[in-house]
Amino acid sequence: MSQPGTVVVVGIGPGASDLMTPRARAALVASDVLVGYAGYVALVGDLVAGKECHALPLGQEIERARLALDLAGKGRCVSVISSGDPGVYGMAGVVLELLRDVTEPERPEVIVVPGVSALMAAASLLGAPLGHDFAVISLSDLHTPWDIIARRLEAAAGADFVIALLNPKSRQRAWQLDRAREIILRSRNGESVVGVVRNAYRPEQGVVVTTLGRLHEVRVDMFTTVIIGNSCTVGFQGKIVTPRGIVSAER
Amino acid sequence: MSQPGTVVVVGIGPGASDLMTPRARAALVASDVLVGYAGYVALVGDLVAGKECHALPLGQEIERARLALDLAGKGRCVSVISSGDPGVYGMAGVVLELLRDVTEPERPEVIVVPGVSALMAAASLLGAPLGHDFAVISLSDLHTPWDIIARRLEAAAGADFVIALLNPKSRQRAWQLDRAREIILRSRNGESVVGVVRNAYRPEQGVVVTTLGRLHEVRVDMFTTVIIGNSCTVGFQGKIVTPRGIVSAER
Repeated sequence: MSQPGTVVVVGIGPGASDLMTPRARAALVASDVLVGYAGYVALVGDLVAGKECHALPLGQEIERARLALDLAGKGRCVSVISSGDPGVYGMAGVVLELLRDVTEPERPEVIVVPGVSALMAAASLLGAPLGHDFAVISLSDLHTPWDIIARRLEAAAGADFVIALLNPKSRQRAWQLDRAREIILRSRNGESVVGVVRNAYRPEQGVVVTTLGRLHEVRVDMFTTVIIGNSCTVGFQGKIVTPRGIVSAER
Repeated sequence: MSQPGTVVVVGIGPGASDLMTPRARAALVASDVLVGYAGYVALVGDLVAGKECHALPLGQEIERARLALDLAGKGRCVSVISSGDPGVYGMAGVVLELLRDVTEPERPEVIVVPGVSALMAAASLLGAPLGHDFAVISLSDLHTPWDIIARRLEAAAGADFVIALLNPKSRQRAWQLDRAREIILRSRNGESVVGVVRNAYRPEQGVVVTTLGRLHEVRVDMFTTVIIGNSCTVGFQGKIVTPRGIVSAER
């Protein structure tokens, strides 16, 4: 029997090819097999021409991770393609969760190659909204009960964190963003600055600076990141800045 | 008088040159002048040979930002070098804060090039600790009163966020990490999994997986990121994984 191989979970960045690191590129080129969501495999198409390639539909994260571990267990070097950074609600967690169930002789090595996250990509287009303490919350209640999400929104808003909302909306999840906005408005002013970024560094990129009070007027979908400033965040000329310092303890 | 130029705030990633994006590299190469902390300018030395280069000491963030804006106001194309991602407690915020005070004829364009953040870099070496909602908190009370930091630690711990601590300790700030640990322990078990990463993707990199109860035994300094898991985070074989889902609402 062959030695187990390697699974490299590769963060390819937000989309633009010049925001993919050379290390990510090298990992894709060096691997025997690629596994990924079809949309992301397409983003790296030119790099992986001629390689064995398993492009699976969205939603089949566990299937993708299992396939990668199976192939690596047989000695292959497998790249799992993750957009943005693979560690932030990405494939790294799914692969490592399943790795725990793989028994010794077939257990491959797993390496995570970090990438420019969708969050940092969105933030950079807005200016510097993440200049101070921030909380990142996924509004997807597919795998997490809503009451836990609500409790986190409440805690983050109450302690004046900048709040980044990932997976804010999809065709199946239409009400969560409005509910989140209501929860945050309990401890935040409607004038709080909010940035909404769609498809950062991809075709059809969109950047909107608005307020918490008017957030419901902006188009939001599953390719959108919403960043809500803290009480010191300011908007000017289409940019958002959260100062690194807080002068007064009482606000 | 010449037209105002551009300030490009460039995230060069955690340190290893193959974790710097091609876009960051191109920005450095295209600029006339470089401004940065001396230690980071050294990291990109080969790229910027022959260029006008202003390497300033640590702590002089405002001076660096002002110099960059002044030079750009005179028509130069200036790169400001930021390690990791420039938006996370980085130079992007400082530059944009000062930009608000620059009056129209000399106001340069400011562009932020995102990078692989120190946070994602540290997380990738630990496995996938940021697989679910997380809060990022700087323990530096140089610009923020400690009571605000304490309140955020309490809120994040109480709502079961994964908590990433940046700037956990320095020669001048010795007690903050212990105090943070005490605050988090009020709502978290001492067995909570904790990852400590020093100098991610740099020489002298160090990765330790421990528990909240034993965190005080680990060496921590200003080049360290501390990531404290949520109640579902598990450690195995030197890796940390936070599952993407939470099965039960009551834990």
